[in-house]
Amino acid sequence: MNFSKEFTSAILIIGNEILSGRTVDKNTSFIAKWLGDLGISVEEVKIIPDKEDVIISSLNELRKKYQYVFTTGGIGPTHDDITSESVAKAFGKKYGYNKEAYAILEKYYAKSEFNEGRKKMARMPEGAILIYNKEGSAPAFSVENVFVLPGIPSYVELMLPQLKEVLVSGKKIVSLSCDAKVRESAIAVELSNIQDKYPDIDIGSYPYSKEGSFGTMLVMRGVDEAKILRCKQQIDLMIKNFIK
Amino acid sequence: MNFSKEFTSAILIIGNEILSGRTVDKNTSFIAKWLGDLGISVEEVKIIPDKEDVIISSLNELRKKYQYVFTTGGIGPTHDDITSESVAKAFGKKYGYNKEAYAILEKYYAKSEFNEGRKKMARMPEGAILIYNKEGSAPAFSVENVFVLPGIPSYVELMLPQLKEVLVSGKKIVSLSCDAKVRESAIAVELSNIQDKYPDIDIGSYPYSKEGSFGTMLVMRGVDEAKILRCKQQIDLMIKNFIK
Repeated sequence: MNFSKEFTSAILIIGNEILSGRTVDKNTSFIAKWLGDLGISVEEVKIIPDKEDVIISSLNELRKKYQYVFTTGGIGPTHDDITSESVAKAFGKKYGYNKEAYAILEKYYAKSEFNEGRKKMARMPEGAILIYNKEGSAPAFSVENVFVLPGIPSYVELMLPQLKEVLVSGKKIVSLSCDAKVRESAIAVELSNIQDKYPDIDIGSYPYSKEGSFGTMLVMRGVDEAKILRCKQQIDLMIKNFIK
Repeated sequence: MNFSKEFTSAILIIGNEILSGRTVDKNTSFIAKWLGDLGISVEEVKIIPDKEDVIISSLNELRKKYQYVFTTGGIGPTHDDITSESVAKAFGKKYGYNKEAYAILEKYYAKSEFNEGRKKMARMPEGAILIYNKEGSAPAFSVENVFVLPGIPSYVELMLPQLKEVLVSGKKIVSLSCDAKVRESAIAVELSNIQDKYPDIDIGSYPYSKEGSFGTMLVMRGVDEAKILRCKQQIDLMIKNFIK
């Protein structure tokens, strides 16, 4: 459920290591939660390989469909890092050294260590705006509504807060949850009735098993906090009636 | 890199809880590794909300593009579980009780407990083939080249091996890795030269930091094990030359 059509986004995860199963993607969860606090919903995530044609077509599709696109991965120094060049091609922009990025990297590395791979990290689409990395050296960047972030989760966490002032955000998405210590199949009908009463609230039902006993985590999301609280009251009552 | 055009697949993760960031998707990694062992590469993963029109259009796109599609999530008993009905609509098939699934659930639940929510889990597209769940009760199912799995990772792990005999698989994708205890930016150029010599092998470079020191995990993937071993020898030598 997107609470406002305006404040939508997509995440494009670029990297063979995610598609092969070698690495579990943690960036989606972090970025989505951070955006949710700003009132921007993530409507779609796509995970794709390090292939130029796929990056270009995916990016061109997503950047037209959503207000913002966040990419992760493929902006490092090695041969398999082809995101920056692909982004330039997607926008039809020149790909070359970004002076500011080059200066940052030149300052960071000793002269003898500033090799071609490291220089490559300063190559970006023309007109890119830098997103700084306080811990590492290589900056990320944005072009129009596309934010091109690294793949390393700790860098993403460091860089994302810089974008708070840049993004036009909506009403914070509020999320409340309650732990129903019964199987979700037991309360499915009653829950559906409550959902019908609150069409603006997205009620999610997530079964779990913990030490051999089953339960259900119920999560209510929406932008109207008072309404969510009323909805939660009804759900709490429903669970109480069920257990007694 | 897909090693054979024939043996391709996509994963469609269905669930608001992944898009909101509340839950980290673990199914992609498990399914992709399992498929890799069968020689089936995952070319694309899409994460979408529990919205009927999005499920239908995504599924219809992916099932035409790839040999197999695996979906996870949305086949439970609650109001937000709309995957089965959406799959039926995507295929233009009737949606109703699957007799075999109904019998399994009827046997599992006491008569007084077999409520509408639980019955719903027996509703599937016409002609669906069941995928059994030895631990839970509700089966998953397949329709043509689409395998509709639950969202709970432990159930996916239990159900997937049943499909081994069903899938037409390729040559096992072999993966070798070596830990270069240097920053990837230091070896980027040399690594690129080795990649050029082995176009059939997908060499991935994944930087990491562990207890304050930086390193790079190099991963070689392909179907020709002898060639991968030769490639690994060259990479080992390159690292050795670099460190000494």
